[in-house]
Amino acid sequence: MSNPNKNIQLNCPIRKSDYPNIVMAHGGGGRLMHQLIEKIFMRAFQNPQLEAKHDGATIEIGKGKLVFTTDSYVVSPLFFPGGDIGMLAVNGTVNDLAMCGALPLYLSAGFIIEEGLPIETLWKIALSMRQAADKASVKIVTGDTKVVDKGKGDGLYINTAGVGVIEHHLYIHPSKIKPGDVAAINGDIGRHGIAVMAEREGFSFETKIESDCAPLADSVMKLIGSTAEVHCLRDLTRGGLATALVEIAKTSGLHIKINEKAVPVCEGVQGACEILGFDPMYIANEGRYVAFVPEKDAEKALKAMRSDTTGADSVIIARVTDQKSGLVTLKSRIGAQRIVDMLSGEQMPRIC
Amino acid sequence: MSNPNKNIQLNCPIRKSDYPNIVMAHGGGGRLMHQLIEKIFMRAFQNPQLEAKHDGATIEIGKGKLVFTTDSYVVSPLFFPGGDIGMLAVNGTVNDLAMCGALPLYLSAGFIIEEGLPIETLWKIALSMRQAADKASVKIVTGDTKVVDKGKGDGLYINTAGVGVIEHHLYIHPSKIKPGDVAAINGDIGRHGIAVMAEREGFSFETKIESDCAPLADSVMKLIGSTAEVHCLRDLTRGGLATALVEIAKTSGLHIKINEKAVPVCEGVQGACEILGFDPMYIANEGRYVAFVPEKDAEKALKAMRSDTTGADSVIIARVTDQKSGLVTLKSRIGAQRIVDMLSGEQMPRIC
Repeated sequence: MSNPNKNIQLNCPIRKSDYPNIVMAHGGGGRLMHQLIEKIFMRAFQNPQLEAKHDGATIEIGKGKLVFTTDSYVVSPLFFPGGDIGMLAVNGTVNDLAMCGALPLYLSAGFIIEEGLPIETLWKIALSMRQAADKASVKIVTGDTKVVDKGKGDGLYINTAGVGVIEHHLYIHPSKIKPGDVAAINGDIGRHGIAVMAEREGFSFETKIESDCAPLADSVMKLIGSTAEVHCLRDLTRGGLATALVEIAKTSGLHIKINEKAVPVCEGVQGACEILGFDPMYIANEGRYVAFVPEKDAEKALKAMRSDTTGADSVIIARVTDQKSGLVTLKSRIGAQRIVDMLSGEQMPRIC
Repeated sequence: MSNPNKNIQLNCPIRKSDYPNIVMAHGGGGRLMHQLIEKIFMRAFQNPQLEAKHDGATIEIGKGKLVFTTDSYVVSPLFFPGGDIGMLAVNGTVNDLAMCGALPLYLSAGFIIEEGLPIETLWKIALSMRQAADKASVKIVTGDTKVVDKGKGDGLYINTAGVGVIEHHLYIHPSKIKPGDVAAINGDIGRHGIAVMAEREGFSFETKIESDCAPLADSVMKLIGSTAEVHCLRDLTRGGLATALVEIAKTSGLHIKINEKAVPVCEGVQGACEILGFDPMYIANEGRYVAFVPEKDAEKALKAMRSDTTGADSVIIARVTDQKSGLVTLKSRIGAQRIVDMLSGEQMPRIC
């Protein structure tokens, strides 16, 4: 192959002495996934939008400022308490647009179907996507269908891409957080991951945990409309709250201090985590996000977030200090401080 | 599930007495795929953009007219003579934008990777995508990575979605073709399908057939710039030339007459088709398209198409009559007429 661009090296940037082959953790949201994205995709594709490392790319067309994003969904099983792959595929992409401060408008849907999937199952999932799209006020306007041989898929994978429009003058990005900012969360963490895991493994807990999967654009629009000065938004998907905050701390170079006592975890999730040996801070959510605002705007932000159905229990869980460490630390319930990092392995595969 | 919309039925629109489960032909571009799209996805999602049945959706944002499209790529094997899944994933989506008359600008890329794929393979494919993106003057600005367990994928599936902009006043659509129009093709047919099939099955033919995979936006922009009155464009992917023309005839309600003698097929493809029992009219291409223009503009159109590297052998292969049959007929080399229809089974799985 001729060199497509002199700035791009031709040799694989991940040495064979590292992981030579893809492992599950490359999709888990932790350290290996970040390495893969930075060393393979960002180095090959190289452009400012990718380097912004946001949930979506801001693109300017004519006089309009749009956001463009994509996610594939490979959750197993296809149906889980509180949702299914179709609902997830709509909300996940809607939420990525919302986290860039965009009003979600249009989605595409690409289906990779394994031979043998009952058509009735596909219909149920398509209906669920329609229902989710209506709820999020987006339209699924274009699509594609591929079929792969039995044993070369897992029922159904869905990709959605989304286009939204930015209708305000804020630049919402991890690099915009400032010392003194507080981070608000719109509810308790860990429901989605535990719901999917329990369904897949056949665990049953005393309280049935349902996924928190929900569209977050309304909440974000209310927050922006509240005139709180929104610096950064991030939804807490793969890798959970911990990973999201670590990413933001790294990008901003600032120090984020979590107050563990303030982080809402429901009894059911807490119990399941204790039994299974998981840390709720790393469990995926599909309807939770953090918003960074100046402390002076904290009450305004909480009020706006609480006014949405997805955020009745919104609360401040962390603050940004003026230390230039790029680290996240957690003050535990018993008062001890520890550094919070990304996971290097995979805690819970295929939850989205 | 509550009814998301009173206009949508809740029962699966494909009866169990038909195919109750997905078969490979549901992804083959023929009759079953069309049934699946119309009865499942179009009925569930219901909106004018989908009902336009175009290669992409035209969306208006602010004062801009954009096109949004998506395709997943599941080609097997990942590398084939003349291309690879990465190059295909860029060109395929670029071409869908071009067929709507849009200038391609931005792509997203979603990777579903099977555990065990060598990272070096992923790097090669990412580089190939970059090279294809540079050639097509598009940027890959956002992406996603998922990993599935060994045995639940086939190395790598890629989804790309694309955004382009319409900078002219033409409305290019199958419904716009008119009696008296001629259809020009930009070269010989069948190379991509035969190249992939030969590589996968280990066939070797006297002449090695390479895929025709190429970006078509430059050719389309030259065609539009020529001031030929472009009525409809369609790239000849799954289902080949025959299926593309059948779709256009159905949508327009007009009769399209193909002159078989005029359809370019190279000796190698012709020979391979004879040995394997395929009809080149149904073989997938990834760098070929048809353009419908009024007969008076035929020479102008051919000149523009021939001026691009993808179209040196552009030629007129069909014409639209004033019969309102919605059918395609073919005048064979020996002068006989026959009706051309979509395939009901699957001729060649997983070629894109």
